[in-house]
Amino acid sequence: MFFHDKRLQYHAKPDRPDPIFARRLQEVLGGQWGEISVMMTYLFQGWNARGPVKYKDMLLDIGTEEMAHVEMLSTMIARLLEGAPLSTQEELAASNPAVGAIMGGMHPQHAIVAGLGAQAADSAGVPWNGRYAVASGNLLADFRYNVTAESQGRLQVCRLYEMTEDAGVRDMLSFLIARDTMHQNQWLAAIAELEADGLETTPVPSAFPQEREKAEVAYQFMDASTGDESQTGRWASGASMDGKGQFQWVKAQPFGEAPLDLPADPRVFGTPKSPIQAQLGGSGLVAKAAQAVEGIVRGDGES
Amino acid sequence: MFFHDKRLQYHAKPDRPDPIFARRLQEVLGGQWGEISVMMTYLFQGWNARGPVKYKDMLLDIGTEEMAHVEMLSTMIARLLEGAPLSTQEELAASNPAVGAIMGGMHPQHAIVAGLGAQAADSAGVPWNGRYAVASGNLLADFRYNVTAESQGRLQVCRLYEMTEDAGVRDMLSFLIARDTMHQNQWLAAIAELEADGLETTPVPSAFPQEREKAEVAYQFMDASTGDESQTGRWASGASMDGKGQFQWVKAQPFGEAPLDLPADPRVFGTPKSPIQAQLGGSGLVAKAAQAVEGIVRGDGES
Amino acid sequence: MFFHDKRLQYHAKPDRPDPIFARRLQEVLGGQWGEISVMMTYLFQGWNARGPVKYKDMLLDIGTEEMAHVEMLSTMIARLLEGAPLSTQEELAASNPAVGAIMGGMHPQHAIVAGLGAQAADSAGVPWNGRYAVASGNLLADFRYNVTAESQGRLQVCRLYEMTEDAGVRDMLSFLIARDTMHQNQWLAAIAELEADGLETTPVPSAFPQEREKAEVAYQFMDASTGDESQTGRWASGASMDGKGQFQWVKAQPFGEAPLDLPADPRVFGTPKSPIQAQLGGSGLVAKAAQAVEGIVRGDGES
Amino acid sequence: MFFHDKRLQYHAKPDRPDPIFARRLQEVLGGQWGEISVMMTYLFQGWNARGPVKYKDMLLDIGTEEMAHVEMLSTMIARLLEGAPLSTQEELAASNPAVGAIMGGMHPQHAIVAGLGAQAADSAGVPWNGRYAVASGNLLADFRYNVTAESQGRLQVCRLYEMTEDAGVRDMLSFLIARDTMHQNQWLAAIAELEADGLETTPVPSAFPQEREKAEVAYQFMDASTGDESQTGRWASGASMDGKGQFQWVKAQPFGEAPLDLPADPRVFGTPKSPIQAQLGGSGLVAKAAQAVEGIVRGDGES
Amino acid sequence: MFFHDKRLQYHAKPDRPDPIFARRLQEVLGGQWGEISVMMTYLFQGWNARGPVKYKDMLLDIGTEEMAHVEMLSTMIARLLEGAPLSTQEELAASNPAVGAIMGGMHPQHAIVAGLGAQAADSAGVPWNGRYAVASGNLLADFRYNVTAESQGRLQVCRLYEMTEDAGVRDMLSFLIARDTMHQNQWLAAIAELEADGLETTPVPSAFPQEREKAEVAYQFMDASTGDESQTGRWASGASMDGKGQFQWVKAQPFGEAPLDLPADPRVFGTPKSPIQAQLGGSGLVAKAAQAVEGIVRGDGES
Amino acid sequence: MFFHDKRLQYHAKPDRPDPIFARRLQEVLGGQWGEISVMMTYLFQGWNARGPVKYKDMLLDIGTEEMAHVEMLSTMIARLLEGAPLSTQEELAASNPAVGAIMGGMHPQHAIVAGLGAQAADSAGVPWNGRYAVASGNLLADFRYNVTAESQGRLQVCRLYEMTEDAGVRDMLSFLIARDTMHQNQWLAAIAELEADGLETTPVPSAFPQEREKAEVAYQFMDASTGDESQTGRWASGASMDGKGQFQWVKAQPFGEAPLDLPADPRVFGTPKSPIQAQLGGSGLVAKAAQAVEGIVRGDGES
Repeated sequence: MFFHDKRLQYHAKPDRPDPIFARRLQEVLGGQWGEISVMMTYLFQGWNARGPVKYKDMLLDIGTEEMAHVEMLSTMIARLLEGAPLSTQEELAASNPAVGAIMGGMHPQHAIVAGLGAQAADSAGVPWNGRYAVASGNLLADFRYNVTAESQGRLQVCRLYEMTEDAGVRDMLSFLIARDTMHQNQWLAAIAELEADGLETTPVPSAFPQEREKAEVAYQFMDASTGDESQTGRWASGASMDGKGQFQWVKAQPFGEAPLDLPADPRVFGTPKSPIQAQLGGSGLVAKAAQAVEGIVRGDGES
Repeated sequence: MFFHDKRLQYHAKPDRPDPIFARRLQEVLGGQWGEISVMMTYLFQGWNARGPVKYKDMLLDIGTEEMAHVEMLSTMIARLLEGAPLSTQEELAASNPAVGAIMGGMHPQHAIVAGLGAQAADSAGVPWNGRYAVASGNLLADFRYNVTAESQGRLQVCRLYEMTEDAGVRDMLSFLIARDTMHQNQWLAAIAELEADGLETTPVPSAFPQEREKAEVAYQFMDASTGDESQTGRWASGASMDGKGQFQWVKAQPFGEAPLDLPADPRVFGTPKSPIQAQLGGSGLVAKAAQAVEGIVRGDGES
Repeated sequence: MFFHDKRLQYHAKPDRPDPIFARRLQEVLGGQWGEISVMMTYLFQGWNARGPVKYKDMLLDIGTEEMAHVEMLSTMIARLLEGAPLSTQEELAASNPAVGAIMGGMHPQHAIVAGLGAQAADSAGVPWNGRYAVASGNLLADFRYNVTAESQGRLQVCRLYEMTEDAGVRDMLSFLIARDTMHQNQWLAAIAELEADGLETTPVPSAFPQEREKAEVAYQFMDASTGDESQTGRWASGASMDGKGQFQWVKAQPFGEAPLDLPADPRVFGTPKSPIQAQLGGSGLVAKAAQAVEGIVRGDGES
Repeated sequence: MFFHDKRLQYHAKPDRPDPIFARRLQEVLGGQWGEISVMMTYLFQGWNARGPVKYKDMLLDIGTEEMAHVEMLSTMIARLLEGAPLSTQEELAASNPAVGAIMGGMHPQHAIVAGLGAQAADSAGVPWNGRYAVASGNLLADFRYNVTAESQGRLQVCRLYEMTEDAGVRDMLSFLIARDTMHQNQWLAAIAELEADGLETTPVPSAFPQEREKAEVAYQFMDASTGDESQTGRWASGASMDGKGQFQWVKAQPFGEAPLDLPADPRVFGTPKSPIQAQLGGSGLVAKAAQAVEGIVRGDGES
Repeated sequence: MFFHDKRLQYHAKPDRPDPIFARRLQEVLGGQWGEISVMMTYLFQGWNARGPVKYKDMLLDIGTEEMAHVEMLSTMIARLLEGAPLSTQEELAASNPAVGAIMGGMHPQHAIVAGLGAQAADSAGVPWNGRYAVASGNLLADFRYNVTAESQGRLQVCRLYEMTEDAGVRDMLSFLIARDTMHQNQWLAAIAELEADGLETTPVPSAFPQEREKAEVAYQFMDASTGDESQTGRWASGASMDGKGQFQWVKAQPFGEAPLDLPADPRVFGTPKSPIQAQLGGSGLVAKAAQAVEGIVRGDGES
Repeated sequence: MFFHDKRLQYHAKPDRPDPIFARRLQEVLGGQWGEISVMMTYLFQGWNARGPVKYKDMLLDIGTEEMAHVEMLSTMIARLLEGAPLSTQEELAASNPAVGAIMGGMHPQHAIVAGLGAQAADSAGVPWNGRYAVASGNLLADFRYNVTAESQGRLQVCRLYEMTEDAGVRDMLSFLIARDTMHQNQWLAAIAELEADGLETTPVPSAFPQEREKAEVAYQFMDASTGDESQTGRWASGASMDGKGQFQWVKAQPFGEAPLDLPADPRVFGTPKSPIQAQLGGSGLVAKAAQAVEGIVRGDGES
C-alpha cells in the first residue's frame, strides 16, 4: 500500500504564469510517454512480476517515484495557469497581440473543464489511455519498453526545456531530465542483469524452441524498397546480435500464393462469385449453420 | 510509392477453421504490438527520417515488409472463420458443448460487422489507435521502441503458437516468429550502428547539454518502497551504463515543499479559502480578466 | 424541440430471454452503423443544413424516427437480459453446458455496469464514438454517407435475423429491416432530387473549378498490383460516370522524386546526417528559433 | 511525494483460480467506476484544491488509499488467472464443457498481452480513459461526483460479490464494500461541511449571480413526454431544494423560432439554396475570406 | 417514440460571429458534461427503469428536454461560425492580429470537416464517448450521477457566460443556466423522494446485507498522507451520514502481506525465478495446459 | 506482398513552411476521411473479397495507390514544419503578431512528440481509429462507403486548397483532387458493374427474402417533425428507387405499446417497484440465479 508526504519531490514553481506552456506540459504529464504512463507501467509490471524479488522491488521503487513526478507536473500546470485570459472578445486580441496568441495557444478545457488545473490528457487534449500501461509478464520485453519510455520521455522534456526561458520551469525540468538520465541507465542495467542472471535473452522470448521457427529467414534482411543503401548497415552482414546466426541481405520475394479461393457465405450475405449463388441466400440458413458447425467439430472444414 | 504482388510473402492456410483462434490472432494484427503498429511505425519513421540515407532506406524496407504480414494475418483470419456457428439458440449449445464454447470464444463482430473477415482491431475488439505509430524524429529513441515492439510482438506470437496445434497456422506463425527474431536483432544492430556513427547515444537525446540537468540526481537510484532488495542489482552501484557517472543507491526523500498557496480564481468559480471571497464571484469578471492578462504580459504574475 | 410519446414505434418483446443475443443486438444500437449513429447523423445534418427547406425538414423527420429505433432496441435488450445467469462458478457450467455457453457469450458489463439494461456501445463493448455522426455541410457527400449507413445497417440487422429463431425478436427486426429498405431508397431518391435541383453533382464538390485539378489523372485507373483483372471492369474504359471524361487503364508509376533532402532541426534533437552537426545542438536554440520564425514570415524558408 | 509499503492494505488471495471472474474484476479495477478512476480523481482534485487545507489533506488521504485498492485488485486478478486454459482446440471443450465455458468467458488479452496479469482496462477490455478523472476546481461539483463514484463502485462490487462463492475473493470484496460504505458517507459529510463553511451551495456554482439566469424557468418541471405521472413527485411542487424557489409543473413548449436562415458558405462548398449560388463557388474565395474576417472584427457579421 | 417541433425551445442567435467561442461551446454540447451526455443518460436510465412509473416518466421528460438543448447549441455554433477566416496565410495575420488570434483559437475541423457546423465532440475536438451515458439500473446511484452532471454542466456554462459579452449568446446561456438550476434541484428532490419511498438509501446499494461487509472499517477515515488537517472535518468524528455508524479517524496501515509467491507460467513465457526453470519452457505446453485446466475444474489450483 | 519505390507518386514540396497548414493537412492524412482510412479500407475489402476476381484485383490496386498518398502527405507535412517557432515566450508574440498566430494555430505535438514530422492523427490531434477501416464482406454496401469516403475526402481537400495560396501545396492538392475525381467515378462504376453482374442490388443485402420484412412500412416516408416540406421531395411519392414499391408519405405514429412491465432483479440491486421487494435482495441470490438459468434453457422466461 502507499503513503503520501505532502512535500513535493522537487520544486515546481514557475517565475510567472504561461498558459501556452501549461498546455504543452500536459504532454509529459498525460501523453503517451508522460509520467502517468511510466507510473502505471512500472506499478503494473511490479505487481505482475513473478521473477526474483530484486526486480519486483526495483519496479515498485521507481513506480512510486514516478507518482511524485505526476504530482509535480500537476502542481506546475496549475501555477502556470494563474490569471490566464479567458474572454474571446476580439477587441482584446486586436489591442494586444500577446493576448490573442495566448488565447490561441492555450487549452480551452484548462479553464472550462478543469478550473485552471491539470488534466489526465496530452497536449492535444486527448485523454490518457490504459494501453499506455505495458506489462507483459516477460521482464526483458518490458524493460525494453521502459528504456523506450525513458528515451521518448527525456526527449520530450528536453524539447520543452528549449521552448521556455522561465527559470523556475527550467529548474523543475532539469530535475526531471536528470531522473530520466538515471532511468535510461537503470533499465539498461536491468537488462544487463537479467541476461547475466540467465533469465532471458535475445530473441525474446528465448525459451521458445529455436527449431520451431522458420530458420532460413531468421537472420535475413529483406530489401523491399528500391535503393540498396540498407546493404551498408550493421544489420546486413556479420554475426547477428544474439550470436546465434549470420546476417544476410536479400531482395524481398514472395514465398506464398495469391489467396483467391474463399467461397462467399450466404449466411452473412457476402458477395458471391456468381449470380446463381446469390439466389440461395436467406433460407434455411440456421440449418446450414448447424451443419457447418458440425463440420468444424469433426475437423472436415475447408478453406 | 508502393506496388503490390498478389502472392503472399508466406503461406497463410490453416488445416481447418477455428473461430476462437481467429479472434485471438486479431491481437497480432490490430493490437498495440501487432503488425499494423509496426508497419505504420516504420513507415512514419522512414518518411520522417532526416539522418543518413541508409537508415531511411532500411526503415522503408522493413515497413514495406510488415505490410505483407498484415496481409497474411488478414487472409488467415478470414480462413479461420469459414463456417463459424452463428446462431445463439441454446438448444445447439446444449446438445453440443463445442458449439457453445465457440460461440462464447469467438468475436461477434467477425460475423455481424466484417462478414467473416478480419478487422483493424485487437483481440478484445478495441480498434487500432494511431498513437501506436511512434516516430519522434530521434532515431535512437525510435529504434528502442522498435526493439520493444519486436519483443512484445514475438512474445505474443509465441504465446499464440502454444495455443493451437493446427499445423497450417503454426507454419505461418513459425515464419512470423523467425522474422521477429531477425527484426529484434536488426534494431539492436541499428542501435549499435547509430552509436558507432557518433549520431546519438545514452542518455537520449545526447545533444542536450549535461550541465543543464540536475547533476546530483542523474545517477541515483531512489528507493521509495519498503524492502532493500533493489540494492543488490546492477543499477544500484558501479559505473553507469553511459559511462558518464556512478550509480548510487539512496532512500527517496522530498526536496520540495508542500504546495498549498494557490488562490481560487473567481472567474472560474473555484472553491475559495473563505466564504467572504465567495461573495466576490461573478461580477466584473471580464474586466478582471483583462487586468490579469496584462499582468502576464508584463511578467508580474504571482503563483 | 422534441416531444415523447410513451408508446414504442413498434413492438419490442422477445418470446424469451437470450443474453447472448442481447450482446449481439448492441451492434445495431451503439455500433458504428447502429441506430445511435444514424439518429445523431441525420439530426446534425438537419441542424447544419443550409439548402432548400425540404431537405432540412426531411432530415429532421428521419432523425426523429431513428430515436424511436434507439428506444426499441434498448427496450428489447433489457428484456432479453431478464434472468441471465451471473455466477462464474464452474460447477454450474460443468453440469449444464448451456449455462457455460451463455456465460461465455454474454457481455459482462450488461450485468455489472448496466444492471441488465442496454448500453451506448457496440457488440464488443466499445463505446459509441462521436465521429460516427457525420455532417459536412455538403448534402450530396452526406446523403452518400446515409445510403452507406442504411446499407451497412440493414446488412447487420439481416445477419442478426438469421442468428435467432425467436419470433418476437424476428418481428421487431422485420420492422427495422423494412425501415432500412425505405431509407436506402429514400437517400437514393434524395440524391436524384439534389442532382435534379442542380445543387450538386459528381464529383463532389462540383463547384470546385475543374481546371484547378490535375486533369490528366482525373479519369485514369492506375494499376498498382500484379494481375490485370481490373482492366475488365466498367471503371477501366468508356465514358466516366460524371460524363466529363473517359476512363483509361494505366500502370501506376511515380511522377515525383525521392524525398531525401530535409535537414535535422537541432531544436528538437532530431537525428542529424553527421556527428559534427550533433555537436551544435542544445545551445542558443531559442535565438535560432526566433531567426527561423522571421524566415517564415519573410517567406524565405527552405525545404 | 509517495512511499510504498510492500504489504497489501488487505488480503487478496482467492481460494482457487477463476479466469472468468478475473475478467469481471477488471471492471472495478480499470472501468469507469473502478479504483483507478477514484485514485486519479481524488489525487487530481487534491493537487488542484485551492480551498481550506482540510479538504486538500482529506483528498490526498483518500486518493492515496485508493492506490492500495488498485494494488489489491491487480494482485487478485493475477492469482485468479493461475493455470488458466489457453488452447483453443475444440477437442478439449468437447470433452469438458467447463473448459469451453472458461475459454468463452475469460479475456484473451489476459494471456496473450498481459501474461496472466491485470490490465488498466475494464471487463470489456476497453482501456481506462483519462476523462474518468474528474477535477473541476469547484469542490461541491467534485464531491458530488465522488459520491456518485462510490455509489456506482459499491454497486458493482456488490454485484461481483453475488457472482462468486469463493471465500477468499468474497473476503477481499467485503473489505472494499466496507470502504465504499465509508467513502459514500465521507463525501456526503464533506458536502455538509462545505455548505456549513459557507463556501458553496446549491445551485453549483452558487457565486454566479442569480439575476443573470432566466428566472422564470429556474424552478419549472417541463413535461415533454406523454403521461403525467411525473406530476406526483417531489420535484413537481413545493419549495425547491435550494430554498430559493417553488417547483412548478408545466407542459414543455417552444420559446424560440425555427432556425432556417443560414446562407451556405461557398468557401466550404456547402449546399446552397439555389443552383445559381452554386455557380459562384470556388473562385476568389480567399479574397472573400479576407472580407468576411474584416466583417467579424468590425462586428458587422450577420447570422 | 419521438416527435419534433421545428421551433427551438429557446432563442439561439448571437449578436455576431465568434469562431473561438464556437469551439468553446462544443464543451457543453459534446463534452463529458455536455448536453449529449445528459440527454443520452436520462433516456437510457428511463428505458432501463424498473421502479415506480413516476421515475421512468420523469426521466423521459427530462431526457426529451435535453435533446432540445443539443439542438439549440448546434444551431448557435453554426451561427457563431458564419464568415470565419479560413486561410492560413501569415500576411493576413501579420496585418491584423485579430485574424491571427481567431485562427489560433478556432477549431480547424469546424471548417474542414463540418463545413461551419457543430460536431459531436468537446472543445478539444475529442469525440463524444458512449461511456458518458450512465445507467446502472439503481436509481439512487444514477440520480447522484445526474446531480453531478447538472453541477459540472452548470459550472461550465457559467464559466462560458463569463467568457463572452455577446448579448445573444448570454441570453441563451442564461436559459441553460436556469434549466440547470432546476435540474440540480430536481435530482436532489428525486433523491429525497426515493428515500422517502423506502426504495433505496445510503450506502448504495442498501439491499446488500450489512453483515457481509467488513464492519470494522466501514466508518473509519484512514489518514494515508502526512498532516492531520483531515481530522478536523465532519467526516472524522460523530455519527455517520447514513445513521448506521460512528466516524473514526485512524492512521492508515496494512492488514495484508506482501504478495511475492506467484510462480511464472512457462506457457506464456513469463520471467521465472531462476534460470533452470527457464529451460523447461516451450515444450509440451499444450499437455500442461490440459492438466492445469483439469486442476481448475477439480478445484485444486494453487495461487 | 508489397514493394516500395522511393520516388513519390507526385511532387510534395511547398514553396515555404506553414506550420498552421501542416496541422490542417493532418485531417486528410489521419482523419476519418483521410488517406489512411481509404488505404486501410480498400486493402481490408480486397483481402476479404470473395466475389469475382476483378473486384478483388481492383480493390488491391487502389488500396496500394492510397499508400502513396499517405506517403506524399507525410512528406509534405514534414516540409511545412521546417523552422516552425517553438518558444512560448510572449515577448516574441508581442513583437510579432504573426509568430503568435502560428503558435496558436500549429499543433504542439508536431514539435514535442513527432520532432517536426507527421502523425497518424487528425487536425484536432485525435489519433486514427481502426473503425475507419470498413469491410463488411458485401461489396455493394462497401462500394457505397467508398463513394462516400471519396466524396468527403475530396470535399476536405478542396476546402484545404482554398485555405492556402502556396503554389507547391496547391500543386500536390490538385493531384489528390483529380485522383478523388477518378475514385468517385470509379466506385460509381463499380456499383453499376456489380448490379449489371447480378451480384447485388438495392436494398442491400438483396438476398434477404423480401417476404420476411414488414412490407407495409418498407416504402413509407414517416413525417415525425412539424412542417410538411418533406412531402414535396422525390422520396415522398412515385416508384421507389429499387423498382419494387411505391413511395408513400404518412404521419409518423406508434405501432407499439409503452414498455412498463419489467420487474427489478434483486441480484443486481436494481430499484424495485416497492419497498417490500427491496427486502428480498442479497440473500440466496446464487441459488436464484441457477433457477433463472434453468428457466431460460427450458424456455419459460418471462419478459
